[in-house]
Amino acid sequence: MATIPSDQNVLKKDETYSLISADKVSGTDVYNTQGNQLGEVEDIMIDKLSGKVAYAVIAFGGFLGMGEQRRALPWSVLKYEPRRDGYVVGAADETLKDIPDIGEGAYADPEWGARIHQHFGVPPYWS
Amino acid sequence: MATIPSDQNVLKKDETYSLISADKVSGTDVYNTQGNQLGEVEDIMIDKLSGKVAYAVIAFGGFLGMGEQRRALPWSVLKYEPRRDGYVVGAADETLKDIPDIGEGAYADPEWGARIHQHFGVPPYWS
Repeated sequence: MATIPSDQNVLKKDETYSLISADKVSGTDVYNTQGNQLGEVEDIMIDKLSGKVAYAVIAFGGFLGMGEQRRALPWSVLKYEPRRDGYVVGAADETLKDIPDIGEGAYADPEWGARIHQHFGVPPYWS
Repeated sequence: MATIPSDQNVLKKDETYSLISADKVSGTDVYNTQGNQLGEVEDIMIDKLSGKVAYAVIAFGGFLGMGEQRRALPWSVLKYEPRRDGYVVGAADETLKDIPDIGEGAYADPEWGARIHQHFGVPPYWS
């Protein structure tokens, strides 16, 4: 996950101050790396303590035989692609087919949090 | 601004994994420290690079003779108060009356970003 260097001069201005509204993120399409539409962002989950976006809640539309289902993906897995005006999930189809479900109490369960980040091979948002 | 220690054991589990959805933040009431309702959260602005929430966009309702207006407040200025089911802005009325307006291009303007954080006496979200 990107950490903003304390010396702002190493980054271009438009990168440093690049903001997006949560309203605009919701409803944005989500694709796999081959450009197939997987679904759309339904909501985002924010860590109150750090103010970091933790998860994007994605409504999957049935691609890959997954059925219509809702999954929470680590925010760091989604990359915005302006050409598509959508997010691309950099994960193999096998990984996408097998995302741990949210389940009751998942967001309060550190083991679930660790598992979902491990599933995608990204460091947890709290690290 | 709070930084999550790498040793998770220093924090209670429910604090560490305390998440809130952006949908739920939007529409939440905002109060001053005296308990007067200032308005409500209209949207939140996310820094794409770091994944941090940068600003809460507040629709002010006319309290303090401000008129109905929209302002972006540094996220770190808002503290959630469960008793009120709302956010409290820890700032004096004089500070609230005089919040720099958003204006066109403000979110892309580092000087505006610095000014709005200075106004509230909090470190910028990118620090």
